[in-house]
Amino acid sequence: MTDFSAWIQACQARVESVLAERLPAAQIAPQRLHEAMRYAVLGGGKRVRPLLAFAAGEVTGADPNRVQHAAAAVELIHAYSLVHDDMPAMDDDALRRGKPTVHVEFDEATALLVGDALQSLAFDILASQPLADDAATQLAMVQLLAQAAGSRGMAGGQAIDLASVGKPLDLAELEFMHIHKTGALIRASVLLGAQCGAAADASVAALDRYAKCIGLAFQVVDDVLDAEASTATLGKTAGKDAANNKPTYVSLLGATRARELALELRADAHAALAQLGAPAARLRQLADFVVERTF
Amino acid sequence: MTDFSAWIQACQARVESVLAERLPAAQIAPQRLHEAMRYAVLGGGKRVRPLLAFAAGEVTGADPNRVQHAAAAVELIHAYSLVHDDMPAMDDDALRRGKPTVHVEFDEATALLVGDALQSLAFDILASQPLADDAATQLAMVQLLAQAAGSRGMAGGQAIDLASVGKPLDLAELEFMHIHKTGALIRASVLLGAQCGAAADASVAALDRYAKCIGLAFQVVDDVLDAEASTATLGKTAGKDAANNKPTYVSLLGATRARELALELRADAHAALAQLGAPAARLRQLADFVVERTF
Repeated sequence: MTDFSAWIQACQARVESVLAERLPAAQIAPQRLHEAMRYAVLGGGKRVRPLLAFAAGEVTGADPNRVQHAAAAVELIHAYSLVHDDMPAMDDDALRRGKPTVHVEFDEATALLVGDALQSLAFDILASQPLADDAATQLAMVQLLAQAAGSRGMAGGQAIDLASVGKPLDLAELEFMHIHKTGALIRASVLLGAQCGAAADASVAALDRYAKCIGLAFQVVDDVLDAEASTATLGKTAGKDAANNKPTYVSLLGATRARELALELRADAHAALAQLGAPAARLRQLADFVVERTF
Repeated sequence: MTDFSAWIQACQARVESVLAERLPAAQIAPQRLHEAMRYAVLGGGKRVRPLLAFAAGEVTGADPNRVQHAAAAVELIHAYSLVHDDMPAMDDDALRRGKPTVHVEFDEATALLVGDALQSLAFDILASQPLADDAATQLAMVQLLAQAAGSRGMAGGQAIDLASVGKPLDLAELEFMHIHKTGALIRASVLLGAQCGAAADASVAALDRYAKCIGLAFQVVDDVLDAEASTATLGKTAGKDAANNKPTYVSLLGATRARELALELRADAHAALAQLGAPAARLRQLADFVVERTF
């Protein structure tokens, strides 16, 4: 195992442990809701957003014992969005992370409440213990996550996505959608990780540029994988975008140019990190990981 | 107009103004989502939770310019819960505050995202400017609201409610459900309003007792009104509980005993306030208002 894959596994184990501890036990009432919340969150996913938070924390010398809570919060926002997106009123998907989706395994009402309660838990965790050098910074972190999740961030991106099905989007419109839908939370993951340490203004600006590139690269690769990989490999239904007539980087650019674009975005992400030196090593590796992943 | 009704109108106007300002304009992308968010929140409702926050703020000498933001935050959590509750997967209701529900006026996917984004906005507002004497207290306020909204508060109460349809509940089980479903957010409204000022431990304990009584009283009266008032008066579908075979205080106790219980809870609420003296006058009036309301 390389040093990088050991680091990934250690970060994943850390965030899994915080999530397992902070999600109420399935024995606590209301039991079915808590069981479904744990089903939705635990034991799956690449944990890309937590990994970004841990890696950004290394840039600012943040204590991983702080970062792990910010990482859990962003992962909970991500997990809630998947539960709601998979519901019949949205993407109507039956498979997620290799398992039946929450509304299939439980029921629609439970899936709705699971998403709602996971969002609340994210803010509970982000506010619940000292994660930054002062409480005012931590309040700003709560605000950052709330805006990244909200109507001008992730939820807004979902709305733009819904409105775009079957419509011809150009590249700028597609980018606008993804900057909201996935980019906002990826940016929040990077910045929240950094804010657990002593984030200087200059490094925040560099991290912001990095996050924008990596968020788009992530989506471009997602589109390529959706078009080319199998459902078994992805753990979610492959080929959904084409089946739903959704505009993607592949449908707009073709797979070859989309793969080139991902590599360009990786180069831009690396360039953004240049000034940050050695402490940004994990962020560089994660840029490679996001672009080279096959699942 | 009495002094009390003038105070109510002033508080309602204040919170309406904060909500109108903080909800993104319907001209901002994604337009349809923002239009639906404003539709769900503005121009309706009694604003009971904001009123409780303002009244509790008077006990601790809180500046209403602070309290209005906490009031807006609790109202947004309440509004999001109504949007999701009305959806077909939950109560499947077509009428709310005298208007078509969000999923009827817009569509189900939009209703789902409206609720999600309103919850995020609540935390954004609660974290976004100084609302307490120090940032650590304000972080504790974020945590309080997150727990009140989450799986061991309001969302958990919804889950208990869903699980109870068609089942014989006893009075203790019914109370357990309501303490979560409506009580948690009412308690948060009172405590958040108080925490905008200088809340002493003794007054917090008294306010907590008051909030528990008033939360249950509110629900008992709701049940009586659902059984006895008309859809036109309520602005929402009347008689739903009986139609859905839901256990209520009226179905368990009969309407006469339920009305008596509401009066007893009001007396308990007044008793809890005894030590707080004159500054608790508005909370006393609100206890009367909640029990004597006809809509």
